[in-house]
Amino acid sequence: MEELNVRDKSKDTICAPATPHGESAIGIVRVSGKDAISIVDEMFVTKDIKTGILRNAKAGTMKHGLLLDSNKNIIDEVICSVFLAPNSYTGEDIVEISHHGSVYVQQQIIISLINKGVRVAANGEFSQRAFLNGKMDLSQAEAVADLIHARTAIAHDLAIKQLRGGYRNVLADLRNRLVNLLSLLELELDFSEENVEFAKRSDLKHAMSSIRMMLNRLIDSFATGNAFKNGIPIAIIGKPNSGKSTLLNAILNEERSIVSSISGTTRDTVEEVIQLNGVEYRFIDTAGIRHAVDRLESEGIKRSYKAVERARIVIYVVDLTQTSSEEVQSELVLLDTQVPLEGKKILIVGNKIDMVRSTRVQKKKWDAMGAMQVSAKQKLGINEVVNRIVTLSDQDDVRGKIMVTNARHYDAMRRALAALLVAEESFDEGMSMDLIASDIREVLHYLGEITGEVTTEEILNNIFDKFCIGK
Amino acid sequence: MEELNVRDKSKDTICAPATPHGESAIGIVRVSGKDAISIVDEMFVTKDIKTGILRNAKAGTMKHGLLLDSNKNIIDEVICSVFLAPNSYTGEDIVEISHHGSVYVQQQIIISLINKGVRVAANGEFSQRAFLNGKMDLSQAEAVADLIHARTAIAHDLAIKQLRGGYRNVLADLRNRLVNLLSLLELELDFSEENVEFAKRSDLKHAMSSIRMMLNRLIDSFATGNAFKNGIPIAIIGKPNSGKSTLLNAILNEERSIVSSISGTTRDTVEEVIQLNGVEYRFIDTAGIRHAVDRLESEGIKRSYKAVERARIVIYVVDLTQTSSEEVQSELVLLDTQVPLEGKKILIVGNKIDMVRSTRVQKKKWDAMGAMQVSAKQKLGINEVVNRIVTLSDQDDVRGKIMVTNARHYDAMRRALAALLVAEESFDEGMSMDLIASDIREVLHYLGEITGEVTTEEILNNIFDKFCIGK
Repeated sequence: MEELNVRDKSKDTICAPATPHGESAIGIVRVSGKDAISIVDEMFVTKDIKTGILRNAKAGTMKHGLLLDSNKNIIDEVICSVFLAPNSYTGEDIVEISHHGSVYVQQQIIISLINKGVRVAANGEFSQRAFLNGKMDLSQAEAVADLIHARTAIAHDLAIKQLRGGYRNVLADLRNRLVNLLSLLELELDFSEENVEFAKRSDLKHAMSSIRMMLNRLIDSFATGNAFKNGIPIAIIGKPNSGKSTLLNAILNEERSIVSSISGTTRDTVEEVIQLNGVEYRFIDTAGIRHAVDRLESEGIKRSYKAVERARIVIYVVDLTQTSSEEVQSELVLLDTQVPLEGKKILIVGNKIDMVRSTRVQKKKWDAMGAMQVSAKQKLGINEVVNRIVTLSDQDDVRGKIMVTNARHYDAMRRALAALLVAEESFDEGMSMDLIASDIREVLHYLGEITGEVTTEEILNNIFDKFCIGK
Repeated sequence: MEELNVRDKSKDTICAPATPHGESAIGIVRVSGKDAISIVDEMFVTKDIKTGILRNAKAGTMKHGLLLDSNKNIIDEVICSVFLAPNSYTGEDIVEISHHGSVYVQQQIIISLINKGVRVAANGEFSQRAFLNGKMDLSQAEAVADLIHARTAIAHDLAIKQLRGGYRNVLADLRNRLVNLLSLLELELDFSEENVEFAKRSDLKHAMSSIRMMLNRLIDSFATGNAFKNGIPIAIIGKPNSGKSTLLNAILNEERSIVSSISGTTRDTVEEVIQLNGVEYRFIDTAGIRHAVDRLESEGIKRSYKAVERARIVIYVVDLTQTSSEEVQSELVLLDTQVPLEGKKILIVGNKIDMVRSTRVQKKKWDAMGAMQVSAKQKLGINEVVNRIVTLSDQDDVRGKIMVTNARHYDAMRRALAALLVAEESFDEGMSMDLIASDIREVLHYLGEITGEVTTEEILNNIFDKFCIGK
């Protein structure tokens, strides 16, 4: 066979800035690969002009000296940190060059490395190598990216848990059960001609259904896990002039110090975001709320339905001077026919309490519905609304739990579940064991995509392209 | 005496982010002070839950493990780099916590450190401690800041030289000569009643004048050093419609890839900047050039004078179809009476060469004046103008030379020179040696301000306030 002359890029020595662009005390350029140490060593001298320092350095040590360009001019005084394969982030030899936090200096270091044959790393290429060299599985590599992007305590908590392997253990458990099931099925298969039955049919059925329940639990956790990771969507709806916009402003004011306006994920919407208790809450389609007055009512309603659809918490603002509790009740029933409210938390907020003198009976009716009574304008009861939002989001249910937070994993699990359902159906219909075994292997295949036991270059590129440079 | 209960802030253990704000592969939190190691150690466990790792770590080593908050929750997987006093940047014990480049994680680390009694460092406080602990002199600390802000090869070169102490050696030489002079003067003083003359008057005079020459040379280097550090100012002047704006655009276009518009240092001007050969050139008052057509001529002229005053290179644009070389000659003489042109490089650019058919005699006359002949509109000869700008700026004179680039040093040297001139005058007038000695001590005092042998809290605060946090 002829040897193709295609360069294996995964063997290149690579470099990249590992710190954000900008002026600061320290900047870091990371170099990884089999020539990392010898190449940086050629550029590095100690203050007393000793050379060859890095190749003799022990793993986990730092060397202070001067970094020189190809003309032997000093680029900077630096500290080189040496990590030796396989005990490094990538599993390869790594030198981290810690330099004065100058953009110019960092550029010069990168240029000098390029001149010595080092290639600038692609986004996430260090983590990709860590994965390929068995230093972490795919779900852990993804957790590294999640951790870097985490803005809240809960998102941080979810990422750390995934990084530390808690999630991987659940998947490993699932996998073990599937492998056991598969070996039982294959045993049956091997001896099927001899009419020996090794596993009881009920045991096999039970194994499959318990796996299905685990998968279902994980799949169900995605809605919550994803919301807690990316911010819990809240819709504020209600009739025109019920005070939606005033209430939103009152809530945002209450939490003024931690309020920020960020560009929404969907086109042309601006979302207001607050952090409560380390969790982010996003008021969706606030543009719709703010300009509700100017809209045709039908358009406003359509827009509200869409917001409700995306929300986990729906705040239904009611004008107490106009609307009775009975009316609200029937409006909610109507709403449910338009947008299924199952799984959503509904918070009824009776507004303009300062303008009505409600009877005891009326108050009792509102209370029975769990409705709050506030004056958004007078800022009465707003703090209670904020507290209720925290309660409704079940923060405590999430902390410490293993959840699916990644859409890619969610997708793989849904495909795994679909394959499992086919297997169960085939089993019930008395189909042949090898058909069922093949379905179970498919389940394993999809789960393997999550941790990367099964993967394609396309999947890898998709994942690591989203990483920052230097990671 | 009663002991005052004023806390000495210089003994605090301090921390700060050392990398720029933002998401990245790696972020660093730096902790310095006598409790740095023990405090971080309390938060740090290795993966196999060993504690007390850092206090047993050797200098210059790194430890991989988990950083915990006060509730023992994992903040991040980190690498702690340990530097021991006095061999660290600050001269104190330092731990650098290298964490995943998450803004949230960095905040949590800082908060946890604060909870353990660590104070957030002021701007430049690490470098200030390095200075106070004798790790570097003031001029070197300032060079660190210059290095971080350097945008060009030449600014980088000047900063590295100052950081590496080349500048300090010149100052030390100057200082030695002053100290020698002073001891001679004081010897004379001690024995003056005995009418013994130790030093020849001519030796003393010579010593003083040679010091004056050194000082003068350094003071003179500031104009150049400062220009090369911050960008060489260029004025483009000429009559209305001579093509100033077209020429500027042609030059900027020629160097399009490295052109940037930055906010000028003076109010309401925008400066165009190009980098040539690792040096920055700033076209000053380009607003004036661009809007020259709309201005009353007298105002335009006034504005031109100001630009010429600030410039090191003056490009005088001449409309070849309107103006003769003789006229230009006399205009320059006139200009010199308004704004002294001494020390400035004048480049006469004859524009609109495409619209004249100059005679041999005319061409010779222009050549004799060193004038270039171009067509800004047709982009003829622009590259030659760019090259001439580089030549005129004498880049080679700067590279490798010790120059004053810092206004504070320049100011101190001017005061030192003034005191020296007084001493020389007193000497010439035969004043008493103790008077002269006192003047020389003043010279020493001012020079001492540069390196920080003499300093005040105000000077230090002024210097280090301008540093970034974490440095």
